[in-house]
Amino acid sequence: MTHSRRIILLAHGSSDQRWCETFEQLAAPTLKSVENAAIAYMELAEPSLETIVSQGKADGTDHFTVVPLFLAAGRHLRKDVPAMIADLESQHGVQIKLAPPIGQNPQLGDAIRDVVLQELENSGS
Amino acid sequence: MTHSRRIILLAHGSSDQRWCETFEQLAAPTLKSVENAAIAYMELAEPSLETIVSQGKADGTDHFTVVPLFLAAGRHLRKDVPAMIADLESQHGVQIKLAPPIGQNPQLGDAIRDVVLQELENSGS
Repeated sequence: MTHSRRIILLAHGSSDQRWCETFEQLAAPTLKSVENAAIAYMELAEPSLETIVSQGKADGTDHFTVVPLFLAAGRHLRKDVPAMIADLESQHGVQIKLAPPIGQNPQLGDAIRDVVLQELENSGS
Repeated sequence: MTHSRRIILLAHGSSDQRWCETFEQLAAPTLKSVENAAIAYMELAEPSLETIVSQGKADGTDHFTVVPLFLAAGRHLRKDVPAMIADLESQHGVQIKLAPPIGQNPQLGDAIRDVVLQELENSGS
């Protein structure tokens, strides 16, 4: 049975569990709304991108979209992640689309403005 | 003349101009809505936090709130930025409040979900 495209929210990862918990909270509304979506970490934490892709493949998914939970594209998104994706595509016989980092979507700028307005209200000035 | 609290959106900074442009776009809705708000970089780009604080002080601002444009708190936000802030407070005789990173606000998780839903529509699946 072939499932539809699987969304993977890709976070950087850290050995600090508090870092990962923040990303799990950030991912929660997406995981609730989008069937088969998953979070994966680029490094230093599990599940890795490899883990999620191989699980998806075992479940019959051939198409993935990686949405980077990064505000901007640095070396990781310009070089490291595309290289990881190319390896996973050839190892697992799947297609993986790399979406732009979330910070390139104008909705994030609007959300930041709303967070700041809330912060100003809390500061009482 | 004393101005009200000044908001500083603090980004990591990079020598890659494309990185900084993404953060300038992310900051734009806030800078448009919040009087006297400014963007500053922790390192590798200008304006630095020091530049913005000393400009603000020269304009008569004594109270700043730093809102980190970071999704989660790692070493930079737990150690480096608090140390920079303590130095700036004593150097310039100002009060600087460090807000949580934007990623700890639930609005960011909702914005990420909206970005993913838009990505899925664009992918046509």
